[in-house]
Amino acid sequence: MSPTLVVLDLAGIFVFAISGALVAVRKELDVFGVLVLAGTTGLGGGFLRDVLIDATPPAALADWRYLLVPVVAGLVTFVYHPAVGRMERQVNVFDAFGLAFFCVTGALKAVEFGLGPLPAALMGMVTGIGGGMVRDVLAGRVPAVFRGELYATPALAGAGAAVAAEAAGLPVTVCALTGAAVCLVWRLLAIWRHWQAPLPSGPASV
Amino acid sequence: MSPTLVVLDLAGIFVFAISGALVAVRKELDVFGVLVLAGTTGLGGGFLRDVLIDATPPAALADWRYLLVPVVAGLVTFVYHPAVGRMERQVNVFDAFGLAFFCVTGALKAVEFGLGPLPAALMGMVTGIGGGMVRDVLAGRVPAVFRGELYATPALAGAGAAVAAEAAGLPVTVCALTGAAVCLVWRLLAIWRHWQAPLPSGPASV
Amino acid sequence: MSPTLVVLDLAGIFVFAISGALVAVRKELDVFGVLVLAGTTGLGGGFLRDVLIDATPPAALADWRYLLVPVVAGLVTFVYHPAVGRMERQVNVFDAFGLAFFCVTGALKAVEFGLGPLPAALMGMVTGIGGGMVRDVLAGRVPAVFRGELYATPALAGAGAAVAAEAAGLPVTVCALTGAAVCLVWRLLAIWRHWQAPLPSGPASV
Repeated sequence: MSPTLVVLDLAGIFVFAISGALVAVRKELDVFGVLVLAGTTGLGGGFLRDVLIDATPPAALADWRYLLVPVVAGLVTFVYHPAVGRMERQVNVFDAFGLAFFCVTGALKAVEFGLGPLPAALMGMVTGIGGGMVRDVLAGRVPAVFRGELYATPALAGAGAAVAAEAAGLPVTVCALTGAAVCLVWRLLAIWRHWQAPLPSGPASV
Repeated sequence: MSPTLVVLDLAGIFVFAISGALVAVRKELDVFGVLVLAGTTGLGGGFLRDVLIDATPPAALADWRYLLVPVVAGLVTFVYHPAVGRMERQVNVFDAFGLAFFCVTGALKAVEFGLGPLPAALMGMVTGIGGGMVRDVLAGRVPAVFRGELYATPALAGAGAAVAAEAAGLPVTVCALTGAAVCLVWRLLAIWRHWQAPLPSGPASV
Repeated sequence: MSPTLVVLDLAGIFVFAISGALVAVRKELDVFGVLVLAGTTGLGGGFLRDVLIDATPPAALADWRYLLVPVVAGLVTFVYHPAVGRMERQVNVFDAFGLAFFCVTGALKAVEFGLGPLPAALMGMVTGIGGGMVRDVLAGRVPAVFRGELYATPALAGAGAAVAAEAAGLPVTVCALTGAAVCLVWRLLAIWRHWQAPLPSGPASV
């Protein structure tokens, strides 16, 4: 990857890791639990994707910076969690940037490994939302992505836009920017306007 | 796979996906949570098997029909969940067919990838029960397969019968039919007679 | 692996499987749930490592003894759980030996598959703690490794010591013994002295 992409990737991992560490602090886990949740949240989506498309060992295991970033994010959150927790709205906005970047790089990497457009878009979504899902399962709660403001749909849309642009033969930079813009705008609108996915109507039979 | 096998495979994914979507509706997840649980329940067992035997990327990512089926099952359940929920007994019977088919194809695929008889039978069981286990973990409950009516034992027996028939040199069709029949009859009897696996006796020391 | 290493490996799987089976008995799971939790706890860490470093199919699927050991441990615990449960302190000590052995073999296997020192040490830790994390997620509780007495830190230290010794060109036996001793002493001291990892200070903002 180009140096710019690596910096953006690490920035995305950093904000994802902070969200994982915040969940751990609120569950009163010890410092190790905070670090593990920071690491799985920051790197889990990419691990899931790499295992499924057989790009193993995952890139994060071959580059020490990918391991250092979640450790730093976890320690910062562990020590300064009251301040970090109060900044959650800002963290959410940075998180939208991380999501936008992850869904695009995940989808384009899947294309590179020979997947078709639909599975590649799905892998882009998995890269974006997978870390948060692993975080919530380890923290003993139903994944937040299943509830509340739209999160997975922007990731899928952004990944789909990137894959479509790639299939149309556009240069990689254009594909990435298009997909990231689609995901980012949609996600920020969802935060700002409190857009939610539809809930089942009527009482569920038990 | 032959067209007949593909149709049966898709039918199995469809009923598994419905069981996942029903759990999501009862947990009051939004439409996206319903679709993800439908997808992971329908495809999760095969994903687990393919990752463990290194048949990646999983077949489901290379064929758009495997992605379309759980989406349709999820949407149908999301919209018509009161009706689908009332049909749960029938869904259970279809689910037994899905289990029978999955345990056999999973075991025979593992044999094809060079695993010995015992691990191959185990992979057959994993293919059959894995999707439901992932569903329950994501929905925040202890996997149903650990409790209640016999479910994993029929899958293991069916997978074992298929592997044994294969080791005896019988044609693949005979192996598949034998294994599926063993699993199906056992599972239907378990539903009908409320057979349960033994529980630990006596109080557990804490 | 040499016969000595295989015996130690199987012994480690045995004690890990007993800890998984005890959790299942306390959750009042049926005999199948006990066997699955015994198997995932005994073998899960190695599976996670093998999938991540692409050493698939995992070694445990290619050798029937690796499947037999957790079954025996599960059945023994299912039948004699009151006695086994009362021996938990002794089980914890055996568990420390299992952890020491797993973190070392996991780290050295990762080195063999071409990982750098830091990821290899991490894979050693994952091998040691992964089984217990999968056990707790399946049993519907927050992984015990996130709370209570130090568990992951000794595993990481032992794995790191083994990797450092290997990088220094020492013979494999020396690397393994050094790493295992570091992990074992640290873990036994943590049990004996009730060492805990630091908790976040101050109230968490919600």
